Parts: sequence; C-alpha cells; structure tokens
Amino acid sequence: MSITVVGSVALDTVETPFGKVENALGGAATYFSTAASLYTQVQLVGVVGDDFPEQHVEFLRGRGVDVRGLQRRPGQTFHWAGRYEYDNLNNAQTLDTQLGLFASFDPQLPDDYRSADCVFLANIDPALQLKVLEQVRQPKLAALDSMNFWITSNKPLLTEVMRKVDVVLMNEAEALEYGETFSLVAAARKILELGPKVLLAKKGEYGAALFARQTYFFAPAYPLEVVKDPTGAGDTFAGGFLGYLSRVGDYSLAAMKRAVLHGSAMASFTIEDYSIDRLRTLTLADIERRVEQFAHFTNPRGEAIFDTLSLRV
Amino acid sequence: MSITVVGSVALDTVETPFGKVENALGGAATYFSTAASLYTQVQLVGVVGDDFPEQHVEFLRGRGVDVRGLQRRPGQTFHWAGRYEYDNLNNAQTLDTQLGLFASFDPQLPDDYRSADCVFLANIDPALQLKVLEQVRQPKLAALDSMNFWITSNKPLLTEVMRKVDVVLMNEAEALEYGETFSLVAAARKILELGPKVLLAKKGEYGAALFARQTYFFAPAYPLEVVKDPTGAGDTFAGGFLGYLSRVGDYSLAAMKRAVLHGSAMASFTIEDYSIDRLRTLTLADIERRVEQFAHFTNPRGEAIFDTLSLRV
Repeated sequence: MSITVVGSVALDTVETPFGKVENALGGAATYFSTAASLYTQVQLVGVVGDDFPEQHVEFLRGRGVDVRGLQRRPGQTFHWAGRYEYDNLNNAQTLDTQLGLFASFDPQLPDDYRSADCVFLANIDPALQLKVLEQVRQPKLAALDSMNFWITSNKPLLTEVMRKVDVVLMNEAEALEYGETFSLVAAARKILELGPKVLLAKKGEYGAALFARQTYFFAPAYPLEVVKDPTGAGDTFAGGFLGYLSRVGDYSLAAMKRAVLHGSAMASFTIEDYSIDRLRTLTLADIERRVEQFAHFTNPRGEAIFDTLSLRV
Repeated sequence: MSITVVGSVALDTVETPFGKVENALGGAATYFSTAASLYTQVQLVGVVGDDFPEQHVEFLRGRGVDVRGLQRRPGQTFHWAGRYEYDNLNNAQTLDTQLGLFASFDPQLPDDYRSADCVFLANIDPALQLKVLEQVRQPKLAALDSMNFWITSNKPLLTEVMRKVDVVLMNEAEALEYGETFSLVAAARKILELGPKVLLAKKGEYGAALFARQTYFFAPAYPLEVVKDPTGAGDTFAGGFLGYLSRVGDYSLAAMKRAVLHGSAMASFTIEDYSIDRLRTLTLADIERRVEQFAHFTNPRGEAIFDTLSLRV
C-alpha cells in the first residue's frame, strides 16, 4: 500500500475575496500528499530551494509522508501567485509564476519508490511525467493530471504520457480543450481511445464525472456556504481518490466510484480554509461522514440532513 | 389530477451553432404543457394573436391539453428571438422580444380551472402571477418560475408572490441574484425564509438542486453528446416535475426528489431537437428509462450503461 507522487512543492500567494495569504505552503504534490497520507503511505518526489521553511518538510514528515525523494537545492522554490474573484471561484487568475528550481528539475526516484502500487503524476511538464513513468515498476494504477499550458505547448508529448496511464484527471475545460470539442462526452471518448480506462473530469463547484468505456458516474460537489480558498481542490480530490484506492487495495471501477466520493469530500474540506490548513486537523472519520452524506444527496430515498450548514429558517 | 398553468405561448426564432428555426412553437406555458400532458390533465391559460397557426392549438389539444383558457385575440403573438453560442449553451442571448398581446394580457381562469390540484405560474409579470393565484381555490401545490428581468424590475411584487407558493423554480444565477449573494446555500435560505417549502435551482448542463429546510437533493444533467436547442429546458423540467407529482398525487418531499429526476430526464430530451419537436414522439416509458439511469449515474453500486450515447472505443 503506497503511492509515489511527483509534482510541485511550492510557496503560494493567494488572494480571495475573503483574505490573502503570502508564501503559504502549496503545490500540487503537497496538496496531494497531505490528503492521501490520511489513507496510505505516500512517497513524495519534488524539489525545493533553500528558501523553503523546514517546518513545512517537518509537517509532511509528521503525516508519515516519505520525503527522501524531495530534493533540497540552492535556489528558489517554485512560487505561484493567484487571485480568485467572487463570481468565479472555480478559476484562479494567475498573477505570477516563478519556476525557480522547477525549471531544471530532474526527478530521481529512490529505489523503493519504484515499487509503489500506485503512481500519481501531478500537473507538471509531461517530459518529467514520462521520466517518472520510466522509473517505476508496473504499478497497479498510474494516474496523471495536466493543465491547459501543457495541452497548448506540448500536446504530442502529453498524449504520449496519457497513452501510458490508467486514469486521466483534468478540469472539464481542459478535457474539452484537449478533445477540441464542446461536448464532454466526445472529449471523454477521444481520451479513452488513447488507452486510459477512466477520465475523471473535475467541474469545480459542480462536482466531478467519471467516464469509462460504458460507464458514467457523477458526484455533485458538497454544498458549502463558505469557501475561503479553492487552491488545491483538484489535487486533494486526486489525493482522496487515489488514497482511498490504495488503502482498500482495489482498483476496480466499482471502487473508483466510491473513491470519487472520497475525492469530492476531501476537496470540500480543503477549500474551507487557506493552503492545507483545514487538512491539518481533518480525520478519516470526518471524510467518511461526508461520503455518507453524498449518498443521501443523490438518493431519492435518502435523508440528506445538512450538518456543517443549516437551512433552519 | 390536474395542473393549471399560466404563461407565454409564443413564436420563437432561435439560432444555435447547429442551425436555426424561425417562428417555431415556443413559450414557457407551451413547453410546460407539452411536457406535463404526458403525465396528467393540463389546463392552459395564455393569449395568442391572429398570427398564431391553428395547427399549434390543434397540437396541444391533441395531447389532451385543455385550451379553453387560451385567449385568441386580434394582434400579435408574443415573439422571442435568441441565440446560443457554442461555449455557453446554458445561456441564451436575447436578440429581440416582441410582447405583442402579452403586454395587455389579463388572465381569466375558466371556473373548473380554479379547482386544479396544482398551479404553475410560469415566468411572467408577477402581477399576472398574483392575479392567477387570487383566482384558484387552495391547490395542493403552487409553484412559480421567474427570471432576472422581474428580479431587477419588480422584486417587491415578485417577493409577495413567492411568499404565497410552495415551490420556487429559478436558474442558479437568478436565485443568486435574488438572494444578493454568491452562495447558493445562502440564497436558498433567504428564499425558504419567505415561506416556500422548496427551492429548485436549475443549473442547466450541471443539473438541478432541491433545497428544503433540512434537505438537499441533487440530480446531475443527463450526459448528452448532441444538444440542438436548449430553449425550453427549464420549462419542460418544471413540466416533468409537476406532471409527475400530479400523476402520483403525492406532494411530499420524497415524491419531489423523484420528480426532480423526471424533470431532468424531460429536459434532456427537449434539448435534443428544436422547439418541442423531440417531445412530439416521446413516451412516459422513454422518460422512465432515463430516470432509472439517473439512479445508476450517482449510485456507487450502479451499472450506468450508456444508451443513447456510447463510449465504445
């Protein structure tokens, strides 16, 4: 039971209508590891500079994350600055990206990382995703995330990596862009034709859809009244999804449907606070409780009593 | 078992990326009646001019719709012209609105219409909605739809009507506008505080959510590959929803959840063709089949095999 993840470990400056944080712990691999470590052993591959506070590494270690694959080198840590507007919390507006050491990152997996059951290629250069895939030994499940930047700048190489994984995660808009279509069903067909068993299309506040060859599964987002910071929602969705699969040791479609609910619940907690702060105190029992509520939300015979919010009037 | 509906009966000119229809049968009350008449007796209240083709009245009569409340007067029928763009099929861009006889419409209900079990006030001037409510005799369920135009131009009167109904249907953006908030949960609380038992928030391609005092229910939209014309999706959603309730004679929250699935299935068929064309041949068995699929779409233990579309690869 272990997941090897490669991706960014970053310092983020984020503005939302509700406040601002500067140089907070961020990065796709950080969010993923923080979430997935609730379920299973996580082995992290990434790079940080000498400006990266040691307390963040300690935090990850404290959650049981194996950080031997996290290189620390002289130079600047990856930094992202973004802003969310009131009426579009689904889409961050990037204000600044400083690649720093990430520009020359060469992922090297410690030997025991190579035997992980599960590999998650977070949203990074497909050339780096490929390098990681070449180092692992037949994982039971490989998954990747990507973004519009790589679809635009290096679609052929991204496609080559997509051919080699079992699960593709993308935001809905990115899947449509990749598929060059306005129909998510058509985009899903194009992506599944490449080889992956599953496309997970993330729709932000509208939930997530799982497409397989003859299967469709949909999970709405948890209805939240307060959203503080949407950063990391997608990566913690992936962390809950793969973390659950690794924990139960079952990579079937049936398990994946339940895993989507874990991903959705995890993402719903993440956005209730800045950075990974809400996840610091989150327990598996909290997650399970929301997962059970999801079943009620969409079951005509369900109860669906609100808990964190209330419509008492 | 009967529903009295008041609203527009119109001639629509609609452009989509896939084609165009001119002066096609349209209007909220038309879409609603066409859908609901699959389930129950519908009594229509509206007005058309001498330019309105008699064949459209015959069509409605042929579906068993009682059209004695449809006034025919000298003058012009309500005409709406709109356009949908590829990347925003949820939102029509209105090109032209000709109120015609609707500007001076005074709804008068035939006496037996007043005893309907169920009343649907489609999206019209709240002053007219109120006039209809004053004529009916204690229906088991009264529902209204509205739109941004009335929220902006006459919120106090719309609010007065909302206080008197059991169910409010609004597009998500309209509910947010009414609630003056960016949180649908907060908007739902404000609306339920007025008195309605239920808010149905329509999210177009993202489905529909039912909010009650302590209950939340969500139905995703049916995953369609081909969408020809989204016009009337919301009104046929209402037609499936209220038609189902009237047919089963059960206006409980439990029945309403199942009714949401009927509304969603009905809307999904509507948008597969222009005007009400897809509904001409649609059967209750077709609807039931999609309703069963909805249960699979959101059930982690479901099968969810596609039928109208296929991801065979």
